[in-house]
Amino acid sequence: MLGRKPTKIRIIPLGGLKEIGKNMTVIEYKDEMIIVDCGLSFPEDEMLGIDIVIPDITYVMKNKDKVKGIFLTHGHEDHIGALPYVLKRINVPVYGTQLTLGLVETKLKEHKITDVHLQRVEAGTTTQLESFEVEFIRSSHSIPDACALAIHTSLGVILHTGDFKIDYTPIDGQLIDLQRIAELGKKGILLMMADSTNVERPGTTMSERNVGITFENIFSSTKNRIIVATFASNVHRVQQIVNAAYKYNRKIVISGRSMVNVVSVAQELGTLVIPEGLIIDVNHIDQYDDHEIVIITTGSQGETMAGLSRMATSEHRKLDIRAGDTVIISATPIPGNEKLVSRVINQLFEKGADVIYESLADVHVSGHACQEELKLMHRLANPKYFIPVHGEFRHLKQHAKLAENLGMDRENIFTLQNGNIVEITKDYAKLAGNVPAGPVLVDGLGVGDVGNIVLRDRKHLAEDGLMVVVVTISKENGKIVAGPDIISRGFVYVRESEVLMDEARQIVKAALEQCEQQNIKEWAVLKSSIRDALKDFLYEKTKRRPMILPVIMEV
Amino acid sequence: MLGRKPTKIRIIPLGGLKEIGKNMTVIEYKDEMIIVDCGLSFPEDEMLGIDIVIPDITYVMKNKDKVKGIFLTHGHEDHIGALPYVLKRINVPVYGTQLTLGLVETKLKEHKITDVHLQRVEAGTTTQLESFEVEFIRSSHSIPDACALAIHTSLGVILHTGDFKIDYTPIDGQLIDLQRIAELGKKGILLMMADSTNVERPGTTMSERNVGITFENIFSSTKNRIIVATFASNVHRVQQIVNAAYKYNRKIVISGRSMVNVVSVAQELGTLVIPEGLIIDVNHIDQYDDHEIVIITTGSQGETMAGLSRMATSEHRKLDIRAGDTVIISATPIPGNEKLVSRVINQLFEKGADVIYESLADVHVSGHACQEELKLMHRLANPKYFIPVHGEFRHLKQHAKLAENLGMDRENIFTLQNGNIVEITKDYAKLAGNVPAGPVLVDGLGVGDVGNIVLRDRKHLAEDGLMVVVVTISKENGKIVAGPDIISRGFVYVRESEVLMDEARQIVKAALEQCEQQNIKEWAVLKSSIRDALKDFLYEKTKRRPMILPVIMEV
Repeated sequence: MLGRKPTKIRIIPLGGLKEIGKNMTVIEYKDEMIIVDCGLSFPEDEMLGIDIVIPDITYVMKNKDKVKGIFLTHGHEDHIGALPYVLKRINVPVYGTQLTLGLVETKLKEHKITDVHLQRVEAGTTTQLESFEVEFIRSSHSIPDACALAIHTSLGVILHTGDFKIDYTPIDGQLIDLQRIAELGKKGILLMMADSTNVERPGTTMSERNVGITFENIFSSTKNRIIVATFASNVHRVQQIVNAAYKYNRKIVISGRSMVNVVSVAQELGTLVIPEGLIIDVNHIDQYDDHEIVIITTGSQGETMAGLSRMATSEHRKLDIRAGDTVIISATPIPGNEKLVSRVINQLFEKGADVIYESLADVHVSGHACQEELKLMHRLANPKYFIPVHGEFRHLKQHAKLAENLGMDRENIFTLQNGNIVEITKDYAKLAGNVPAGPVLVDGLGVGDVGNIVLRDRKHLAEDGLMVVVVTISKENGKIVAGPDIISRGFVYVRESEVLMDEARQIVKAALEQCEQQNIKEWAVLKSSIRDALKDFLYEKTKRRPMILPVIMEV
Repeated sequence: MLGRKPTKIRIIPLGGLKEIGKNMTVIEYKDEMIIVDCGLSFPEDEMLGIDIVIPDITYVMKNKDKVKGIFLTHGHEDHIGALPYVLKRINVPVYGTQLTLGLVETKLKEHKITDVHLQRVEAGTTTQLESFEVEFIRSSHSIPDACALAIHTSLGVILHTGDFKIDYTPIDGQLIDLQRIAELGKKGILLMMADSTNVERPGTTMSERNVGITFENIFSSTKNRIIVATFASNVHRVQQIVNAAYKYNRKIVISGRSMVNVVSVAQELGTLVIPEGLIIDVNHIDQYDDHEIVIITTGSQGETMAGLSRMATSEHRKLDIRAGDTVIISATPIPGNEKLVSRVINQLFEKGADVIYESLADVHVSGHACQEELKLMHRLANPKYFIPVHGEFRHLKQHAKLAENLGMDRENIFTLQNGNIVEITKDYAKLAGNVPAGPVLVDGLGVGDVGNIVLRDRKHLAEDGLMVVVVTISKENGKIVAGPDIISRGFVYVRESEVLMDEARQIVKAALEQCEQQNIKEWAVLKSSIRDALKDFLYEKTKRRPMILPVIMEV
């Protein structure tokens, strides 16, 4: 061994820490790399106009040749959503379970990516990829086919829980393989990375089956139409709606693009089982009585473009909410969406619907483990080192505290941020530097071309609007030959502000004349004179600070 | 009585319905009017750049001479915040309890309004104003000196609960006067208007005193500095922090403009009692050990400009968060503020502070009545007619349902929107038309000058930025003599987009040349040609739609 570098594992999270979203972790061993998950996140409020956010993969691109494959724990957007963007730049095989890859396939098709090798993996099996043996361990979550990963290396086992909860009575009967985790734990797990989302919640998360009981109660006592909004990817939830519909003789209308997509993929794969003839075309809905209908739709987060919202505001082409409808919002608002959801609830009530939501009945359960479930996971896995993942800083911190309270040494717990490198050998684990890791903003076709300056301008424009000042001056003598013209947008009603605009024009004129008298010719100075004069004037008159854009032309 | 109009009462809510905010209700009787509350609301997300929102008082201004006075139930912003704007337009006396008027006074001073008659009223007394007898009934809420109003007319009694909860052990010992409400109820109440905020919550709201117990526990076991963020107006909360500080020998630093303001007003009025020498100047904080300090500050809603946020981000001039500090966020996020609060919690943890918030301990109680308290109020008051107020539509609806479940006739319950007129006589109550009632947006000095067009432009600018195209053409032949120049803001990084801008210029040139060939001279057509050509080009290249502003100058 003399002279050779000691073998080490390097763990590099590129997303998912200090945030809930864009999960992506690089695992390096012996000059080889695998990637766990490849997700997107949704823009923060201040990221105006941004569509989605993806991880920074500078480090991956620098080590392009080392990357052997991408392993997916499950098919949620925050775990697969960045794939199209990453696969456009680096073509490596992608490993995942059936439904996960089914969803990936749809996504890649939309992005017209066709040349990627998707390798389907069964839960309970192990894939050998160079120096890594990646074992998919069945888990439970709010999407079927979710797995934890046990990554076996000659240095030891890394357990990545993925997103999980412990459901003793899952809808598809496919239990989380606690025994296998226990077995691995007994043999010795080197490092665990575990979901921190619900660490602030005491107790345990209810079984998905509980929601089915609520559905049964509602379906059995409702005489009119039922509309259920939920996450399209929560196939087990959809299955329970289907079951209730079947039992109480209701036909099903599927509404919303992503609901139609996921239902079709899941049905094809056999993950979702719908009796023949139960689903009807939305155009045939009038052939049935109200008590014979249930509509399953998207929009449980109050998204204005989704099915439920469109129905509530009568903007849906084919469906409307009618007085007497029972609407079930089978979801909980993701932080930040509370007001959107509340707005839809209000709109539905105004339409005369009866609305059932989480604060009124058990129509939703979380997909993430609460404190008692996390403790069980820690006790079964009993890892040497621990990295809390999938959470805001508060969650990572509380999860670290939970591990400490279970007796883990503080120095064996790593509360990280994206880009941190954790180096692990037989003898130690330590922080060992950083790689670039920040949000990459996607706006339309642009990936990363909108940054802080553009966002700052958008914010400025959003708050106070703008004023464009155009003036044409003579090349010969610098005198004004046309203008100044002033155009404003997002500032004040033009009709109400004619006097103000006239005064503004005079202010600009005066500023330019002063420059002329002082024989100032530089455009930069002229422009800043215009800007300063106008800024003070407008602030005094309105206490607003619109963006001022002076344009000078010369003829 | 022949030929005379029957006496009627008209109830006209101008704010507070289908929203939580800007509470204001007009009560008309015999050609006289009084107004209950005069509040503001905070802008919705889509009201970009707006500072505050106030009620539309068109109807009040039309009936200026009839208005006898404004009665305030308590001193929260959503009940007094629009006063400066309304009093600038109509000078009428304002009636309220001690602390309420204390807060109003500070507010009017800021707006330089000095000529308003503020009439202090004691809880338990009745004010005669023309045909109205307005009785202030002590209530309990998250601000001291809150009252319900019993408005006695010869037609009957109107009970307006104001915002309330039922606290059997209030901090100041001033109990909600349930006996008086019961007495009035026994005699007969014509109409009740009641707070609907917490109608979705079962059970009862905990007493404010519970929070004090939590404070005691934290204060007694903490060795380092304690920082408590709460609403400035929650004087009883502040009192409990003061009490705990006194008991555990900590000096108090008051931080944040509104906290300093309210503490000073409340102390002056005797509502808040602070032992001599307990408060120290922030500049002297270093003279004390960490365990001798508690800082009371604003920012419990995560507001970026408030005390707590500034400390968490090291932007506060005098105070900073240090590792080991214990920070108590003694509030619950108002819907819409969840992410802001979460961000502050994360920042505090990152600074090494221990953060205690509602999901971890009982550090906050609501100021509004839950279901069981509402039921009690209905049973005691037992009104003939009922209008649920102070709530989004979902709350009003659920409150109406609650009343119905208590046996009230559905036709005696009025679920209204702002501007509706309810007419009540001896024999009936009915909807009787509408008056103007909508949000009036305040932006800087402008009241109502920002409307839908301006907001739509701001939204457009916020999402995709803008592109200004300037071209100077000849008066004689319509040929381009300067430009086209293109300036963009909030669209793409300029450095990365030089090629795009060059192409855009060519597109504009081509569009103008085509117009010239077709002998088109009208500016409107030229502009729309520029706009259309550029829009399609940019969308194809970027999938974005910036606002395009063509400017043509003629020389």
